Amino acid sequence: MTDPIADQLRDVLDGRWIELRRRARAELPAEVLLAPPGLSLEEHRARTTDSLLAIAGMGYGRVGFPAEFGGELDYAASCVLFEMQAYGDLSLLVKTGVQFGLFGGAVARLGTRRHHAAYLEDIMTGRLLGSFAMTEVGHGSNVQALETTATYDDSTREFVIDTPSDSAVKTYIGNAARDARIAVVFAQLTTDDGDHGVHAVLVPVRDDAGKPLPGVTIGDNGPKGGLPGVDNGTFAFDHVRVPKANLLNAFGDVGDDGRYVSEIDNPNRRFFTMLGTLVRGRVCVGGGAGAAAKKALAIALRYGAARRQFAAADGQDEIVVLDYLAHQRKLLPRLAKSIALSFAQNAVTERLQELQGDTGAERDQEGQRELESRVAGLKAVTTWHALDTIQVCREACGGAGYLAENQLTQLRADVDVFTTFEGDNTVLLQLAAKGLLTDYQAMWGDLDVPGMVGKVAGQVGERIVERTTGRAGIQRLVDVATRRDDDSATDSLAWAVSMFEQRANHVLETLGGRLRKANKDNAFELFNSAQDHVLLAARTHIDRCVLEAAAEAQQGMPDGPAKGLLERVLILYALSSIEEDKAWFLEHGRLTTARSRAVTSAINDLCQELRPQVATLVDALGIPAELITAPIVH
Amino acid sequence: MTDPIADQLRDVLDGRWIELRRRARAELPAEVLLAPPGLSLEEHRARTTDSLLAIAGMGYGRVGFPAEFGGELDYAASCVLFEMQAYGDLSLLVKTGVQFGLFGGAVARLGTRRHHAAYLEDIMTGRLLGSFAMTEVGHGSNVQALETTATYDDSTREFVIDTPSDSAVKTYIGNAARDARIAVVFAQLTTDDGDHGVHAVLVPVRDDAGKPLPGVTIGDNGPKGGLPGVDNGTFAFDHVRVPKANLLNAFGDVGDDGRYVSEIDNPNRRFFTMLGTLVRGRVCVGGGAGAAAKKALAIALRYGAARRQFAAADGQDEIVVLDYLAHQRKLLPRLAKSIALSFAQNAVTERLQELQGDTGAERDQEGQRELESRVAGLKAVTTWHALDTIQVCREACGGAGYLAENQLTQLRADVDVFTTFEGDNTVLLQLAAKGLLTDYQAMWGDLDVPGMVGKVAGQVGERIVERTTGRAGIQRLVDVATRRDDDSATDSLAWAVSMFEQRANHVLETLGGRLRKANKDNAFELFNSAQDHVLLAARTHIDRCVLEAAAEAQQGMPDGPAKGLLERVLILYALSSIEEDKAWFLEHGRLTTARSRAVTSAINDLCQELRPQVATLVDALGIPAELITAPIVH
Repeated sequence: MTDPIADQLRDVLDGRWIELRRRARAELPAEVLLAPPGLSLEEHRARTTDSLLAIAGMGYGRVGFPAEFGGELDYAASCVLFEMQAYGDLSLLVKTGVQFGLFGGAVARLGTRRHHAAYLEDIMTGRLLGSFAMTEVGHGSNVQALETTATYDDSTREFVIDTPSDSAVKTYIGNAARDARIAVVFAQLTTDDGDHGVHAVLVPVRDDAGKPLPGVTIGDNGPKGGLPGVDNGTFAFDHVRVPKANLLNAFGDVGDDGRYVSEIDNPNRRFFTMLGTLVRGRVCVGGGAGAAAKKALAIALRYGAARRQFAAADGQDEIVVLDYLAHQRKLLPRLAKSIALSFAQNAVTERLQELQGDTGAERDQEGQRELESRVAGLKAVTTWHALDTIQVCREACGGAGYLAENQLTQLRADVDVFTTFEGDNTVLLQLAAKGLLTDYQAMWGDLDVPGMVGKVAGQVGERIVERTTGRAGIQRLVDVATRRDDDSATDSLAWAVSMFEQRANHVLETLGGRLRKANKDNAFELFNSAQDHVLLAARTHIDRCVLEAAAEAQQGMPDGPAKGLLERVLILYALSSIEEDKAWFLEHGRLTTARSRAVTSAINDLCQELRPQVATLVDALGIPAELITAPIVH
Repeated sequence: MTDPIADQLRDVLDGRWIELRRRARAELPAEVLLAPPGLSLEEHRARTTDSLLAIAGMGYGRVGFPAEFGGELDYAASCVLFEMQAYGDLSLLVKTGVQFGLFGGAVARLGTRRHHAAYLEDIMTGRLLGSFAMTEVGHGSNVQALETTATYDDSTREFVIDTPSDSAVKTYIGNAARDARIAVVFAQLTTDDGDHGVHAVLVPVRDDAGKPLPGVTIGDNGPKGGLPGVDNGTFAFDHVRVPKANLLNAFGDVGDDGRYVSEIDNPNRRFFTMLGTLVRGRVCVGGGAGAAAKKALAIALRYGAARRQFAAADGQDEIVVLDYLAHQRKLLPRLAKSIALSFAQNAVTERLQELQGDTGAERDQEGQRELESRVAGLKAVTTWHALDTIQVCREACGGAGYLAENQLTQLRADVDVFTTFEGDNTVLLQLAAKGLLTDYQAMWGDLDVPGMVGKVAGQVGERIVERTTGRAGIQRLVDVATRRDDDSATDSLAWAVSMFEQRANHVLETLGGRLRKANKDNAFELFNSAQDHVLLAARTHIDRCVLEAAAEAQQGMPDGPAKGLLERVLILYALSSIEEDKAWFLEHGRLTTARSRAVTSAINDLCQELRPQVATLVDALGIPAELITAPIVH
């Protein structure tokens, strides 16, 4: 028996790549996607490799690669596939993300035709397993400071890859400890004519039998907080020689004369252009985390709608726990946020396709920068949301939630590091704020904001970028809200959108005002004392992007109960966010105390109102039923 | 080189059982207390059992048992030992907690001399491993609704223990899956003269060879989200017969005539009196979680004080990450809260000793009820604090924090279920609020608040219990604060104590006003719509207890730098709590917007001010150095 409202909502949530989602739901087998609990580390790793090969065998490794070399579908469609896989074992998800996304993506985007012809078919089929070796022991968030060297020896036309110190050892590298035969190694490129900054070089690391090649030392990061199936490890290189052709040379190369050549003169800009082609990884991580949160909610909500604990007052039937306001308060606002985030995720995925879909060349630098900023912030917001939500779901299922068979604890343990990899969330929020504050040229400074503040003092904050989506539906909503000045509209989407806009703009404007006072002498102090303000600016901007993307999708639906239901869900999301920031709204005179209290009442009312719609909303999430094996919901 | 300020603070934090803490620090061997990462489930379980026996072999199993039967030290001293063990592997902690605390404690407190003489020596030495079998599949928080039956057969003078349905199966029972030879089984007691509610009966479950006894079905809960060394499992009983003497008969017994006898006539009161003797378990869980949070903070703070990532603005040295305000903001308020909670933990432990130390008899029912309420709330607040803090510490250590060797991920996975066992946190907060609202007799209703509201409608809220500590030091502080009406005192302990008091009182008074309107018809609706208010009342009350306990300890110190430092730490704790509830203070006219902003500034200033004291404060936590093996801090 299908639920037409759920079907309609699911289609809207599925968005542009609805066919790929449907195909993945129908085709991807649960026995491949899920791993049983209780495997040993080695068993889990072996199983994950087998499952990766099974996925590749079904052709899914081709999604997102260029058609010319055997790829399929759109570049950004791979992010949607990543989301769909995230309903299964996240070890497998990350392993495929390393192979097809990071490693394969680097070969496709940083390499050129010679690399594509030589490697892509083997990468897509899983015949060649590889690593993406960027992070070093001493250098996580600060990629520009990597120490590994790639020194060009013109006499042999080779690069010499070397790890000069303990802090230069590559670490946390997926596929390294067990499977990789080759790695994309990020290293400081040097030729006879000087240093050229970080570049990527293909370095074989194991022979066909799996033995480390001479000069390559491989370590195992061992047991982790989660992702037991991913063989994270370390690489150290002792003057390992690779042919000149192994340089991934899309943005810089060594000519036949042994001299460095690049179409991008500025080394900083070159570096960030290279990094920019890797933004897809952050889109994927956010989407994967969002999917994991939805799976957890589906489990906890179904359990909560069935579990009885205490009898009600005299003579009444026992009440299911989800009928308690406290339980609804835990789960429903998070469900609403998960739904809102889905639309923001769809929006950045579509935008990624628009900007990088064809070639990865940066045609629209302004747009690319805006996308990077939004993706950085959305990744941070979504992964934290996922971590928080899965934990709350675990607790909402009590002791049963703690049993591995009920799927919540492994999910949470696995998602944990999503807040760290592909960029530490706090650093990413600062990056997002920076994208809002500085103009394009100013960005090619350091990744670190204090450095940037020092260097571009005087420019910072001059230009506060206004990043509305500028779409007609949203504008109409806001216009309606700002025309009203009575207190009756608290519980409306238009009012919420207007509040989100006011909050984001005010926080950003006042931040600009503070940072404008920076000069070389006070830059660190000034930045440091404003750091909480910086983070708030990023978060409120992202919140606004999320609500606007969701409202835009909702406004585009045909009138009817599905559209009406989604509106109520988005209002719950928005009011919950406003409630969290109530103090800000009160301090800044954007809410009266009466209206502030009305927000809390409205949330409580909405929880009760949406309670009967929970089954429909869970159905609309579109999680394949066979991937939810938790005995507590069966 | 010792730090005299750290030494002095440590002594204050060590409190009444300082000698036991010192002995545990000096004696408990790291090779027993710590488990290496990466063990299989079976290896971890076996190791945990061995370590439990090693701890028992050192005599620590005797702490908290009556001297007459070979026990040592005070009843409540076992809570302090529990804290000290929590710096090691939490699987071992929980395993010893099950053996000596829950199982042994039930025999000691619910049993009588015949049980003590027969069992305690073997329990303390670990020769007899046992379970505490309370929770059932269908009945977690609602213990009064347990289904397992203990039916007295006067013809054979035996109890027949039976599991009448699937939902009556005992589950999540520690020691069950592997080790227990006997279990304290909670069951509905029936004699020929009627039903007498839940009682505890000793039921042998395995023979000497470890094989389940006839009629006993034992299951394994399998892999969990953490605590891999604890063999949680299930028990089902098929008409298992045990001698009459196996009834733990301190509060109710079957006489030689086959009739039930008890000194407590009211079955509800009898039940809650039995449960009340078990409050020690909740004290332990809170203390253990608090210790785990401190260990995580020690790791993250030491790492943060050494890790360099980005260079500062031009020409300056690289900055350690802990010099960033955002990093301080993550860790220092949590450190301050950990320290404040330690004093509250000491206070409830001392109070437990005063009330139950000698006999466990309830001499002071009012005091006992107040303690139960405070312990319930403190357990919830502390375990959530621990979970949050360990996760933030993990993230603050980046990818390194995700490696098992750095001790954070296992800690977090293990502590997770501390929010659920010994009482679900949300249910416990409701219990705490109930304790504040109802008078003593009204309490002997159901554990569930809506039921209680229905039954005692009209009485509820009549009496708002004023639970100040009533100590002179605190009163002086508050008097000073309330005399001032200028804005200069935001950054003072006196002002903070006064704010905490105002918040707790106002929330409780208004809650009383709401619930007073309850009657039999509207009870559920009324209670349910006020549930967030109920939780707030409990939390703000506990926050107040925490700050007052900490301030009391601080006020009692001799004047000097240690006292001054602790004052600043407590102000940081208090202001962070006020900041979290800013909206409440603004809505209720307790903070002006100017003062509200001043709170945030004061927190930022305090973070910077306390930054140079971090090493001293970490030292003062008194975590044995050899238990912090994380390579990132060595």
